[in-house]
Amino acid sequence: MPTLYIDLMSQPSRACYILCKKHGLPVDVQMIRLDKGEHKKPAYLQINPLGKVPFLVDGDLRLPESAAIMAYLCDKYSLPDNWHPGSSSSSGQAAAHQQQQEQQRRAVYESAVHWQHLNIRAGCMRLVFHTVIGPRVFKVPAVPQVAADGLKVLQQALKDMESYWLGGGSRPFLTGQQVSTPDLLCVCDLEQLRMMVAEPSQPQLEQLLAPHPIVRQWMAAVRAAVGPALYDEAHGKLAAAVARLAAAAAAKPAARL
Amino acid sequence: MPTLYIDLMSQPSRACYILCKKHGLPVDVQMIRLDKGEHKKPAYLQINPLGKVPFLVDGDLRLPESAAIMAYLCDKYSLPDNWHPGSSSSSGQAAAHQQQQEQQRRAVYESAVHWQHLNIRAGCMRLVFHTVIGPRVFKVPAVPQVAADGLKVLQQALKDMESYWLGGGSRPFLTGQQVSTPDLLCVCDLEQLRMMVAEPSQPQLEQLLAPHPIVRQWMAAVRAAVGPALYDEAHGKLAAAVARLAAAAAAKPAARL
Repeated sequence: MPTLYIDLMSQPSRACYILCKKHGLPVDVQMIRLDKGEHKKPAYLQINPLGKVPFLVDGDLRLPESAAIMAYLCDKYSLPDNWHPGSSSSSGQAAAHQQQQEQQRRAVYESAVHWQHLNIRAGCMRLVFHTVIGPRVFKVPAVPQVAADGLKVLQQALKDMESYWLGGGSRPFLTGQQVSTPDLLCVCDLEQLRMMVAEPSQPQLEQLLAPHPIVRQWMAAVRAAVGPALYDEAHGKLAAAVARLAAAAAAKPAARL
Repeated sequence: MPTLYIDLMSQPSRACYILCKKHGLPVDVQMIRLDKGEHKKPAYLQINPLGKVPFLVDGDLRLPESAAIMAYLCDKYSLPDNWHPGSSSSSGQAAAHQQQQEQQRRAVYESAVHWQHLNIRAGCMRLVFHTVIGPRVFKVPAVPQVAADGLKVLQQALKDMESYWLGGGSRPFLTGQQVSTPDLLCVCDLEQLRMMVAEPSQPQLEQLLAPHPIVRQWMAAVRAAVGPALYDEAHGKLAAAVARLAAAAAAKPAARL
């Protein structure tokens, strides 16, 4: 049975976790506490020398990168084709026209899963790390200029998501009519922005989504496709942290009186 | 025939160009001048609303993202399997063991092609943009803190490339014994750092590679695998720009005397 190392506070970890639980995959999920630095301790570095989560071990295979982990699991367990097109082995007898259609569908999927890295993910990650997570969780100083650059990237990515990837509302999901792994990756990154409650002077998720009703609608569609109970369970640890950060932020001005 | 829109000054454009030329693919290559802002003009935005290169048009298919473009071309033209494993349709009669081996090889490939985005690419791109390209080409101010963050990401990525991806020298290429598309993407990003000659006080490519002889060896191996003539041709426009930047940097202190 493969072992998946994750922390549910990590965005791409949650995407992998949701895929596993949604399909009841026989995967042993091991929690690694990022806030305790477990990912940088010798015991874990022996498993994954890159010192990151998520990470998958399956026999001799040692696999970093959430998108690759999800593609492999889709492949190994022959999950429904919408999650990662091309993972189910297609019949060699497919007509040329059908083969071409499948190639094009795979291509659109690949473009979305690659696009998210330097757009939604890079934007969200730098904004939330250099305002909240860096200083509060890892005790490293925030660099406001990097947060500002992340915000700029994110704002453009949200525009592109709305108009290009979701076709101005003509497609419910990033790659078409059905949910796929890039939807999971992007939604988990956007959810992380709820941690911005710790810095009320910084842009909040609701503000960032305000000009993009189609993105908001898509987030709801992804939650519904995953199943709200599983979606909320996967985000439970984050929700608890957000509640604590909100309480601390609310107490702060009062303390100053 | 597909049309590929690129600028050879763009790192991922060069990776796509090299793949096409290496295999003599019937692809119509159209040059878009980024320095003239052609990628943001209405004529191009009608083709690619995202306003970026590379971009591929093949009939109804409109495809952004270099990694997806290369995967699609490997698939469409059944290129040798090492460039993008899984692109050649494998026989449905493969034994279970062989199928598992192919799954694992694809997984390793996927992990490398996803890894490069937020490591080699994000590092190189932010460093060179926020020192040289931003102010000199696009007339936008450099943000030194973003360049410094990019440098940190890049230095860690070079370490990880050397020890993890190249296995401390036990593998000649990122995914094993043969060259693949993530090698092209990474090498084209690292070559871009030659533009740092414009800022002699900033870290230069040779300095960054000095602690990483295995990465340097890998760059030479990728050039050899591509074919030095094609590799140098693809980097010719960049080399000319680097020569101009070097001449201007050399003239600068003299002008101050």
